[in-house]
Amino acid sequence: MVTKNDVKFINSLKHKKYRQLNNCFIVEGKKSIIEFLKSDYQLIKLFSVDCSFFSKIKNQVKIENSLLRKISFLINPDDHVAIFKLNYSKPIDNENLIIALDSIRDPGNLGTIIRTCEWFGIKDIICSNDSVDCYGPKVIQSAMGSVSRVNITYLDLIKYLKSSKSKKIITSLNGESIYKYDESFDSGILVFGNEANGVSKEFFELMDYNISIPRFKNNKFPESLNLASSLGIILSEISRKSI
Amino acid sequence: MVTKNDVKFINSLKHKKYRQLNNCFIVEGKKSIIEFLKSDYQLIKLFSVDCSFFSKIKNQVKIENSLLRKISFLINPDDHVAIFKLNYSKPIDNENLIIALDSIRDPGNLGTIIRTCEWFGIKDIICSNDSVDCYGPKVIQSAMGSVSRVNITYLDLIKYLKSSKSKKIITSLNGESIYKYDESFDSGILVFGNEANGVSKEFFELMDYNISIPRFKNNKFPESLNLASSLGIILSEISRKSI
Repeated sequence: MVTKNDVKFINSLKHKKYRQLNNCFIVEGKKSIIEFLKSDYQLIKLFSVDCSFFSKIKNQVKIENSLLRKISFLINPDDHVAIFKLNYSKPIDNENLIIALDSIRDPGNLGTIIRTCEWFGIKDIICSNDSVDCYGPKVIQSAMGSVSRVNITYLDLIKYLKSSKSKKIITSLNGESIYKYDESFDSGILVFGNEANGVSKEFFELMDYNISIPRFKNNKFPESLNLASSLGIILSEISRKSI
Repeated sequence: MVTKNDVKFINSLKHKKYRQLNNCFIVEGKKSIIEFLKSDYQLIKLFSVDCSFFSKIKNQVKIENSLLRKISFLINPDDHVAIFKLNYSKPIDNENLIIALDSIRDPGNLGTIIRTCEWFGIKDIICSNDSVDCYGPKVIQSAMGSVSRVNITYLDLIKYLKSSKSKKIITSLNGESIYKYDESFDSGILVFGNEANGVSKEFFELMDYNISIPRFKNNKFPESLNLASSLGIILSEISRKSI
């Protein structure tokens, strides 16, 4: 039995405030749910139009299509909506390359970044406290299950960078060409500034290196690349060196 | 004077059907409007909260903030909304590398792709007829002005590829590593399949080469990369060879 209050509760989870208050978040779509089920994340409840698909899951409630449409955040809901327990507090592994994001605001971009990081073997992403929450429905959707495996930590980024002894590399519009940069990327912190406002002075002062993606023949336009695209290009450059 | 019908008309332009019926589209935000004004696109009308910013533009109408909110597609409107004339039919330049997109559906992804293509010097993008329209508000917004300079053509992609004598390269999950592929990319057609369904058999049969972005240490996850990210990585690989 799913009550009106249940629907209201699930809908409230699109907001960070209510996710944190209730310590849970929503995952939709068979593929993503499967990946979260295989991970350390703990399932609270699964709502399914067809209970035979996840037949071994006990805390499952059968729902009608009409109800699915009411609780889903998707335009085309995919038969199942799962509630999982939040899990923010895993330790950061400083032995590997860490990706740091300053004030990332676009949930689709963050999801794409998490997915790209996983593709290239990154285990840890750290985000400044004012960044968009990685448990929002749009992030979960565009990350395609990667949120279940990549460790994402929110912290005071400036403070963290100041106290860290790791090598710090920033990506900006005026650094050394990534095609020429040949330092090792086995460990350290690779920082990406805020897309709208660029990298602040305070960040530059904390950095050991500044790298850039060169434009084609010194093109004047566009002004910049999309953040997730820049990250993909740079991680690919790092990856090609280790292959 | 802006009437209720004008508001209705402008709002209708978020739909492709009405853009094509009226042969026009919306550009918002100072930066993007400046870039379209500098291009071949023809301005039909500019609605401004502050007319002094584009003081030389004659077909400009002063509007109040309350009206701006009604006609803007943005959550935080940026003082100006411009209507430009559509311009689909520029010739394709076969001398350079062309990017081909099959059934691209996500407008934010297409916008990012157009922006990334321009960064790496691509002049022409061809899209299958069922792809999302490049003049939709979300594409214009995420392309950050690049739609004004990159030539985007909609066509029967299979037919075009069949008749083209150019070298055809596809990006898939099981091709040759882009880090090892050393054919020239000065011309030809670089094809990206549909993100949800992958590359269809019909496409593979038309191709001369099949390339892939290798995963980190044969990672099993994620299943794929975001389309715009893949394109950025591959164009960067091409670019690094010519620098």
